[in-house]
Amino acid sequence: MGANWGHSLRLSIFGESHGKAIGINIDGLASGIELDFESIEKNMERRAPGRNKFSTQRKESDSFEILSGIYEGKTTGAPLCAIIRNEDKKSKDYSKLKEVMRPNHSDYPAFIKYRGNNDVRGGGHFSGRITTPIVFAGSIAKTILAKKGIYVGASIKSIKNIEVESLKMEELTLDTFDKLAYKEMAILSDKKILEVKEEIEKARINQDSVGGTIECFAIGVPAGLGEPFFDSLESSISHLAFSIPAVKGIEFGKGFDITRYYGSEIKDEYYYEGEKIKTKRNNNGGILGGLSTGMPISFRVAIKPTPSISKIQNTVNIKTKENCELVIEGRHDPCIVPRAVVVIESVMAIALLDKIYEAGGKYE
Amino acid sequence: MGANWGHSLRLSIFGESHGKAIGINIDGLASGIELDFESIEKNMERRAPGRNKFSTQRKESDSFEILSGIYEGKTTGAPLCAIIRNEDKKSKDYSKLKEVMRPNHSDYPAFIKYRGNNDVRGGGHFSGRITTPIVFAGSIAKTILAKKGIYVGASIKSIKNIEVESLKMEELTLDTFDKLAYKEMAILSDKKILEVKEEIEKARINQDSVGGTIECFAIGVPAGLGEPFFDSLESSISHLAFSIPAVKGIEFGKGFDITRYYGSEIKDEYYYEGEKIKTKRNNNGGILGGLSTGMPISFRVAIKPTPSISKIQNTVNIKTKENCELVIEGRHDPCIVPRAVVVIESVMAIALLDKIYEAGGKYE
Amino acid sequence: MGANWGHSLRLSIFGESHGKAIGINIDGLASGIELDFESIEKNMERRAPGRNKFSTQRKESDSFEILSGIYEGKTTGAPLCAIIRNEDKKSKDYSKLKEVMRPNHSDYPAFIKYRGNNDVRGGGHFSGRITTPIVFAGSIAKTILAKKGIYVGASIKSIKNIEVESLKMEELTLDTFDKLAYKEMAILSDKKILEVKEEIEKARINQDSVGGTIECFAIGVPAGLGEPFFDSLESSISHLAFSIPAVKGIEFGKGFDITRYYGSEIKDEYYYEGEKIKTKRNNNGGILGGLSTGMPISFRVAIKPTPSISKIQNTVNIKTKENCELVIEGRHDPCIVPRAVVVIESVMAIALLDKIYEAGGKYE
Amino acid sequence: MGANWGHSLRLSIFGESHGKAIGINIDGLASGIELDFESIEKNMERRAPGRNKFSTQRKESDSFEILSGIYEGKTTGAPLCAIIRNEDKKSKDYSKLKEVMRPNHSDYPAFIKYRGNNDVRGGGHFSGRITTPIVFAGSIAKTILAKKGIYVGASIKSIKNIEVESLKMEELTLDTFDKLAYKEMAILSDKKILEVKEEIEKARINQDSVGGTIECFAIGVPAGLGEPFFDSLESSISHLAFSIPAVKGIEFGKGFDITRYYGSEIKDEYYYEGEKIKTKRNNNGGILGGLSTGMPISFRVAIKPTPSISKIQNTVNIKTKENCELVIEGRHDPCIVPRAVVVIESVMAIALLDKIYEAGGKYE
Repeated sequence: MGANWGHSLRLSIFGESHGKAIGINIDGLASGIELDFESIEKNMERRAPGRNKFSTQRKESDSFEILSGIYEGKTTGAPLCAIIRNEDKKSKDYSKLKEVMRPNHSDYPAFIKYRGNNDVRGGGHFSGRITTPIVFAGSIAKTILAKKGIYVGASIKSIKNIEVESLKMEELTLDTFDKLAYKEMAILSDKKILEVKEEIEKARINQDSVGGTIECFAIGVPAGLGEPFFDSLESSISHLAFSIPAVKGIEFGKGFDITRYYGSEIKDEYYYEGEKIKTKRNNNGGILGGLSTGMPISFRVAIKPTPSISKIQNTVNIKTKENCELVIEGRHDPCIVPRAVVVIESVMAIALLDKIYEAGGKYE
Repeated sequence: MGANWGHSLRLSIFGESHGKAIGINIDGLASGIELDFESIEKNMERRAPGRNKFSTQRKESDSFEILSGIYEGKTTGAPLCAIIRNEDKKSKDYSKLKEVMRPNHSDYPAFIKYRGNNDVRGGGHFSGRITTPIVFAGSIAKTILAKKGIYVGASIKSIKNIEVESLKMEELTLDTFDKLAYKEMAILSDKKILEVKEEIEKARINQDSVGGTIECFAIGVPAGLGEPFFDSLESSISHLAFSIPAVKGIEFGKGFDITRYYGSEIKDEYYYEGEKIKTKRNNNGGILGGLSTGMPISFRVAIKPTPSISKIQNTVNIKTKENCELVIEGRHDPCIVPRAVVVIESVMAIALLDKIYEAGGKYE
Repeated sequence: MGANWGHSLRLSIFGESHGKAIGINIDGLASGIELDFESIEKNMERRAPGRNKFSTQRKESDSFEILSGIYEGKTTGAPLCAIIRNEDKKSKDYSKLKEVMRPNHSDYPAFIKYRGNNDVRGGGHFSGRITTPIVFAGSIAKTILAKKGIYVGASIKSIKNIEVESLKMEELTLDTFDKLAYKEMAILSDKKILEVKEEIEKARINQDSVGGTIECFAIGVPAGLGEPFFDSLESSISHLAFSIPAVKGIEFGKGFDITRYYGSEIKDEYYYEGEKIKTKRNNNGGILGGLSTGMPISFRVAIKPTPSISKIQNTVNIKTKENCELVIEGRHDPCIVPRAVVVIESVMAIALLDKIYEAGGKYE
Repeated sequence: MGANWGHSLRLSIFGESHGKAIGINIDGLASGIELDFESIEKNMERRAPGRNKFSTQRKESDSFEILSGIYEGKTTGAPLCAIIRNEDKKSKDYSKLKEVMRPNHSDYPAFIKYRGNNDVRGGGHFSGRITTPIVFAGSIAKTILAKKGIYVGASIKSIKNIEVESLKMEELTLDTFDKLAYKEMAILSDKKILEVKEEIEKARINQDSVGGTIECFAIGVPAGLGEPFFDSLESSISHLAFSIPAVKGIEFGKGFDITRYYGSEIKDEYYYEGEKIKTKRNNNGGILGGLSTGMPISFRVAIKPTPSISKIQNTVNIKTKENCELVIEGRHDPCIVPRAVVVIESVMAIALLDKIYEAGGKYE
């Protein structure tokens, strides 16, 4: 299990890193939506590895094929399935991975769960590559949201100890989001990009890896979206976010920091700006009681350092039942944070679209 | 929507703060489970307000009535519904709450979503009181888990700026968990409890409120539990955790802090301890690839300061469409963190039991 | 499992025949719906036993208590939970039912499934009494549908070998439905009612029972409601219908009989009546490809004879592991078909409302 | 919506008749299952058209490609996605189908639902061709069930007015099921096959079509499988069965006929045969209270005559808003019942496997 997500927009994913193909079946899309293929490709490319020396050298065209659900460029309303073939499969020997468990990877619990039957090549179904179909779905969700005046963007908030300034309230615009999406890294300041690249390069040279945090926003979300309790906006978004390999934390609005303040200091007081109700600040990240407040929705996720590092590591061989050493070969992405930005945006877009679709039926 | 949660253990909650009753329908419990009523009551009491001057003065017996699903003290396997009557309903006038939106509360987005039809008395369905049934379900889940050698515990990690030391790996025992559960506050150090009480008292005197963080653990969880992607352990736990009002962040293992380290510094290396595979540290909080590793599962949540404070606040009147001032009357809990501890434990217990039930059918 | 149903309108039921209470939690109702208590009571009464000598003598007030989800007579949009207390519980000894399995009842498979822990008193959770909450939910669904111009009605189609004429297309009106609902039995012809009563009385005198068929209709359903494949209108309706104890068959439109004709004989040809597209006949029962056609939706269900009969029966004692004889004591309903009519109407109403709510979000 | 089905075994289907490919994503399969490719192919072939002159002339290789979820011939436990390319796509002009609604087809309600955006070529997503992936999934389910001693078979029960004798209790064996599967038609008597072929040929010559009924059995099902109420075995099976285009009725055991008898005549009395509890007859089709009794499970479905006939039909043109005549061109299957047999078997196998997987977790 674990392939399916969603109430009124339903995703079903599949695929292994070195299998024939990965993909997604998306059910519940409204009919008549014109797909923006350019935007899908752009987003896929933002996630794709091999764009520069900071990411893994594996070249993947990541060209998708839509098998169903569109006709003459528009959604039909029937399930839309898209697949991405795995082309650059290395023929190297993976048999050792069946015995020697890589630390910080899913190898060991997956071995137990699937009793040794899981496809271990390149991480198999646990590979970060399986987020590609999520980016595909996210791109479509963004297109649909944009037609409703809702826009999603994200920027890197930190890489290891390098802090990047958060977007200010007034910077939360489609323009900023577009600018971030087209940069080498989703950071407004070019100076910071240089710093970050240096840090990542340092990790790469040291056969090491680094992680970071990503901050994601949605603007134009109407008030009242979401549900109380089990289908709160935070529940839906976090559920999806923790589907993404390497995510270890999520916080909304001021997040963990909100616990450092007195209630009187972090209240989001309302006021009328013309006809529109706004809050002066947005400590709650645009969500109260699981529902959107009409203010920008914001959350941050923590991405752990890439588990694959080239240094010697201690681990176990589950066949010989002995402790052993391991060197993970091949070149690995010393930092996946830059590529994860568009995945996190997709999480936000998909979660919001599901809520919008769910809300509709009973509020004529 | 939002009342239902779970795959193989399914919850359905209901109730408003000042309605007739709140409750929960639990489906999927194994049959023949002897309920531990003492433990349920103890857990309910841990969450109940009015235990001391640090919590709200409202007296609720929180005595539950089981309507179905048990026979001669054991679960029948049929849905188990329990209700808790709302006894201490204040007859005060709530009409103002229909117009004047309390900051940091769900009032405004709920007004939009339900077009003014929501029950506003005491927060209605958005009240923290609705977590009582979750504690009830969590107690039963804990009883079932305990029979499988799985134990859940939690402690306060911080209140405002006061940091409490985390439990050490060797302190993660049933004994520690029991000790924490029976203390005035879930903090091992009595000295820290005094500090925390002072901070809370200060907030109370200042008509203000404080929040904090809670750290939750599960020990004895076998490796291989959970699912990849959309039903990862983290996804399930976080989904439930964000159902709890006031939770604004969650992190597993080292959480956000993990981003501050090099990959080589935070890897959880395996070794054999006899027949058992363990990791030296537990930076991943017992979860890799969405699956349990056999190490203790750990997460932390951020609880925001109680939104209800007695200070004058600025807000809007949606009827007159004017900005206005608001003073929330009555006595409010200046800090809900101590009472939330058992709720967070329930989140862990319920999520784990669902995964255990889900795993079973295909692994004979 | 088995307590939960629905996508956009979600039901969660609970209760045993002789437990404390039975009930239902309904999530997803639109807010601001004024409940029609009179109509709920009327429907509950139509299902209630003890109305005449043709039904079981157990007197149940079946008075419901709404615990949540309404405020000042209107739905709040939060989950609406209603319970019905079990008042007329017989104190008789049920221990024999733990050993001696009643034929045609759920006793034996339930004993296996729940390993002897199920509540056997009066059938426990398997009792037809658990359909009461479904009638409650169905009444609310009917009220909401009526506001959209959709009306649901049903009539008895047969009792044992007595055939009742189907409603003609032109008889499918709210008036007819109301007339049927208020009659002693849901049969238009008083002469037929007499015949049917005689047949049931004969069965009663013979310590025997009879079953029959019920025909259910919905008018005013717009075209295009439903989904292809797994959420076809027929799938949703049949799923719910087979939740009702004693239902052993369902057929839509001409049903099984449609297989007796050539394709050319049973095609539903379209024509314009003014602006409206209609079909000349309605062999498909208003559903094509899982979607409503705009014509009346119609289905028939088969209700088996009441399993509880007073005649001596052969069966097994699972404790002594011997064959034995059994006489079921007490007075039993010789025919539940008349009381089941309103339950079947509820199935139709609930299924349609779920589809309507589901459709809404993506078709602005 | 409508693409997804299942609790513990989850299907997600996609595809249109003349799109690029159709397929299915199957989540929840146990790991380590050796797939029986020969059996999958055999089952696919049983459903495939063009095998003889009684079925449509379209030639489809229906060769499937498994994209994920298997490794070295065994299931990995990760989602298994299989696709079937649409090769024999006719290039004919389908534009008329966007305007002229074929009677008895989904054209009109689909046009309304999808606002004209649905793919109309060959029925699009509503095509019977989309049952191919269900047969694929059913084949895998059968393989897994067989390892547990559970076997599924089906035979034609009637074609138009030609009745075929039901399998007798003693004929319900794997041998019989195999024999039926390998025959030209799933009918034991060769004489009946000739009769049926004549009837179908007559319909074909008359540019007409016929339907029929199929009887499906499962043997070896242990007692206690299923759930009460909303997840009854009948609910699950019927839900899936009505997903299959052209199914208009389903009945379990004696079905509608059971209403013709007195309760005393159709009771399934238990007796011990050695250690095993059996019933003398099986009027309830192996299901009581939604649970399996350990006796063979049996149901019958009604398949309506193929909607596509070559005779002139009356209908409407929704563009010109006028009544019109229609001649459906091309050669059509005058009777899909023979090909539907394996689809119905798949329904049984998939529903049972889901229940088995669901049951497992809580009964150690």
